[in-house]
Amino acid sequence: MSERRIVLGLDYGTKTARALLVDPKSGDEIATAVAEYPHGVLESQLPDGTRLEADTALQNPRDYLTVLQQIVPEVLNAGGVQSEEVIGIGVDFTASSVLPTLKDGSPLCTLPEFSSNPYAWVKLWKDHAALPEAQDMTELAERRGETFLSYYGGRLFPEWMFPKTLRMLRMAPEVYTAADRLIEAGDWLVWQLCGEEKRSACQAGYKGLWSKSDGFPSEDYLGALHPEFATFAKEKLPSDIYPVGSRAGGLRESWARKIGLSPGIPIAVAMIDAHAAVLGSTVAETGKMVLALGTSTCHLVMHEKKILAGGIAGIVEDGIVPGLVAYESGQSAVGDIFAWFTKNQLPAHYHETAKQTGQDVFSYLQSLAAQIPSGQTGLLALDWWNGNRSTLMDASLSGLIMGLTLATRPEDIYRALIEATAFGTNAIIDNHTEQGIPVNELYACGGLSERNQLLLQIYADVTGRRLNVAASSQAAALGSAICGAVAAGPEMGGHATFSDATRAMARVKDKVYSPDPSAHAIFKRLYAEYLQLYETFGRGALDTMKRLREIRREAGS
Amino acid sequence: MSERRIVLGLDYGTKTARALLVDPKSGDEIATAVAEYPHGVLESQLPDGTRLEADTALQNPRDYLTVLQQIVPEVLNAGGVQSEEVIGIGVDFTASSVLPTLKDGSPLCTLPEFSSNPYAWVKLWKDHAALPEAQDMTELAERRGETFLSYYGGRLFPEWMFPKTLRMLRMAPEVYTAADRLIEAGDWLVWQLCGEEKRSACQAGYKGLWSKSDGFPSEDYLGALHPEFATFAKEKLPSDIYPVGSRAGGLRESWARKIGLSPGIPIAVAMIDAHAAVLGSTVAETGKMVLALGTSTCHLVMHEKKILAGGIAGIVEDGIVPGLVAYESGQSAVGDIFAWFTKNQLPAHYHETAKQTGQDVFSYLQSLAAQIPSGQTGLLALDWWNGNRSTLMDASLSGLIMGLTLATRPEDIYRALIEATAFGTNAIIDNHTEQGIPVNELYACGGLSERNQLLLQIYADVTGRRLNVAASSQAAALGSAICGAVAAGPEMGGHATFSDATRAMARVKDKVYSPDPSAHAIFKRLYAEYLQLYETFGRGALDTMKRLREIRREAGS
Repeated sequence: MSERRIVLGLDYGTKTARALLVDPKSGDEIATAVAEYPHGVLESQLPDGTRLEADTALQNPRDYLTVLQQIVPEVLNAGGVQSEEVIGIGVDFTASSVLPTLKDGSPLCTLPEFSSNPYAWVKLWKDHAALPEAQDMTELAERRGETFLSYYGGRLFPEWMFPKTLRMLRMAPEVYTAADRLIEAGDWLVWQLCGEEKRSACQAGYKGLWSKSDGFPSEDYLGALHPEFATFAKEKLPSDIYPVGSRAGGLRESWARKIGLSPGIPIAVAMIDAHAAVLGSTVAETGKMVLALGTSTCHLVMHEKKILAGGIAGIVEDGIVPGLVAYESGQSAVGDIFAWFTKNQLPAHYHETAKQTGQDVFSYLQSLAAQIPSGQTGLLALDWWNGNRSTLMDASLSGLIMGLTLATRPEDIYRALIEATAFGTNAIIDNHTEQGIPVNELYACGGLSERNQLLLQIYADVTGRRLNVAASSQAAALGSAICGAVAAGPEMGGHATFSDATRAMARVKDKVYSPDPSAHAIFKRLYAEYLQLYETFGRGALDTMKRLREIRREAGS
Repeated sequence: MSERRIVLGLDYGTKTARALLVDPKSGDEIATAVAEYPHGVLESQLPDGTRLEADTALQNPRDYLTVLQQIVPEVLNAGGVQSEEVIGIGVDFTASSVLPTLKDGSPLCTLPEFSSNPYAWVKLWKDHAALPEAQDMTELAERRGETFLSYYGGRLFPEWMFPKTLRMLRMAPEVYTAADRLIEAGDWLVWQLCGEEKRSACQAGYKGLWSKSDGFPSEDYLGALHPEFATFAKEKLPSDIYPVGSRAGGLRESWARKIGLSPGIPIAVAMIDAHAAVLGSTVAETGKMVLALGTSTCHLVMHEKKILAGGIAGIVEDGIVPGLVAYESGQSAVGDIFAWFTKNQLPAHYHETAKQTGQDVFSYLQSLAAQIPSGQTGLLALDWWNGNRSTLMDASLSGLIMGLTLATRPEDIYRALIEATAFGTNAIIDNHTEQGIPVNELYACGGLSERNQLLLQIYADVTGRRLNVAASSQAAALGSAICGAVAAGPEMGGHATFSDATRAMARVKDKVYSPDPSAHAIFKRLYAEYLQLYETFGRGALDTMKRLREIRREAGS
């Protein structure tokens, strides 16, 4: 038998799933394999042609198993890894991606009587159809003074499990009644693999209105939303929820055969993808904020105490590491703003010059914007192209740019947009520190941290904090592998704690971005201006952005 | 001798001069000829290589005569017009474009001892080097409570004759001392042609701090700026100023020979180009505001009474038509904003599709933006890309756009920019009507009125006013021809009054833009939002724009 021990991280994103094999001692990434979901994201119709309502985004749960049978054998083969060398498996998943199942875990959409009912499929995280339900739930919770509201910054989102399920009950009561279980897709996948329905505190805490101290919302509250909803948590959700890193069970014989692994390998309870990336960025302690920089940005930081801080989207005990409270904030568009800009605002000759000089257009723009000293664009923007998630939790806000003159160039605007997202992150940091949650250092991971050095330096300069970058380009999958190593435990060649596991397995790049004092001084002045606009347009002094939406809606009707 | 009577309009712009022959009875435009100034605009150096300070823009006065000898023979030839058929000449000119001369009218820059001194050349209207002088003059006038300040909205501009001359006195006292005269280039040209120094109330009133009731500023005030400046008006400017349409004199023998016309033809006193365009747009009465729509917009309206209204850049008796007070406002960038947008913000495929469909890019953008119903962009902009001339007179303000989302398209922004310039014009109209100066109907002339139907309709919809468009594409030159016809008088085949002359000679297009009531209702709501931003950022509640400039300046030093 081989001496080598390997852990497997499974990372289920929006369009693809990824498998990563990691050495739990050295952290060496042995091999990776990726596959797209055969049905992708269903936004306009089901495979049988059934039309979907607006703002819907569904997935086929069978796809998760199909790709699993593809990527695991492929990654083992690519890494030259023997089945008996794999000692643990971790899973991260998008959330809240929810599906209704029978008691045995069969998804309702796989039953002939429900296969044409959209509510029987996986409601993907970005499905926003439950907006009215989220509003109703928020208003009722406010009126009743429900404590749980304070764990979520005072507002529920249509992306979460409860609003999605309430909508199911309202729109498709037959599906609701037939469902023995409503479950996160990540928890469901773990259930499939090990035969145990063991749900994760990470998903339940951030997306399922559950907390370690209070459990789920009361029957009273739920019943006031809809009589049949009263018993939702009691009947369709289990009350035992497990901290991240817990062992959910061992790999079932049937699945072991299908994917070429040994039966009985420990499987960790699931984790939300962005939260797994925290571990993959080396962070398992307090005071270090991880920025998962992608199309949007997720900000996660841990603290010993549970402080019901305002303007924070999720406050969850054991949410990332057992024993610590994890705080989540977010910016709803970051990379998306830059992509919008290059698609909609960039003259031809920028694309041409980039091509001629063998760069992609973002690299070329970066090189131009990097030549502009801090404070020299004359511009200031509010980074609200997709609303403001944190700290204002207001999707009706919109983007603003000012300081425009006839001499303003595209690279000035590009730089101002990067600066605006840095100011937005700084507002989130301030919101933590002002309420007693320290943020000492920053850790970046995700797509933008791989390819935008200018952005990283600006973030350091604006925040006045050292910024480290995850060495792994697949920090979420690495975080899952870390969970697998902790679930396996030291006796099997894994690790006893997240601290041990992250220390051994995760790394940051040598290059650390340190704030430049003179740039920081200039940005402090610009940030004061940003904050003034933030307050003015974000907290009601000037409700122009909301009224522009109203005017558009009413003029269009 | 021929029965036909023809008048000649000469229009001196920034880069070119134009000659237009018009039938004073029918208004038919017989022929036109255009020529560029040989030396163009001198912005970095004199022809001999002398370097120029920043914000300088000079011209060579000889160029005005050179092109005259080219365009007049050319237009006579093109129109098949005999010299004896021409009965009157009018001249319009950019202003304040000022030059120092000897008593006989010789420009100082033509004397060898001054040819290398930039202050001896024509300071073109857009020369902004006298900014400190304009500020000093404004502050002193404020402190002393000088009445004349209220004719100019409370602020003097560096473009005007007095600040330019004060700067000459400070920087090049030898030129100031040698100058017997400081004179507008338009008045100087008339002087050359007829041998009489007869200055126009239009130029003196708008750009020369002169008013019919008060004359020039006092020696006391001028002397407090600089001891030698006390006698400036008394010694270097004549006290007799003539209303527009007055006959300055007859064409001198020498010039008649040079340009192929008969000696003695009546020549009208000069007029500012935008003001001449009012006449060329059929307007010689009260209540009709003319918008000269070009790179910037000039707004002119007349009223019986002299009302010292705030936020109006110039209030001049007899400024356009004798017996009426003419009020001038302006937006410092309009067409310039659209040009900036297409150069800096428009992706390649817009240019490509325009080309493929045989349109220029503005026409293509118009066709896309015209498909967007009013109020449906979700955007709102402040049109201050080059500051705000009226009603705020603040060059330190800058452009703003808000309501941006990931779904915002270039054509949405283009439409929002047009709407913003319409809102800016509406704020100017409101400023008149609120202070008792009626604006009943709009008349558009200038480049944008020729080629942007969408803009014209939006202006009608936003302002809720009928908008007429000058039939002539050369409204300023036509206005000059009208002056020539009035100077000639009815006995020679011209006209007795401006009313008669404009009625006979100027026309509007058949197509009148009428406000659409439902669009107007939507724009009223958007305009209320615009006004709130206008007040907030324009009048000190949020001085963000000024501070962005400060930060840029201080960070750059």
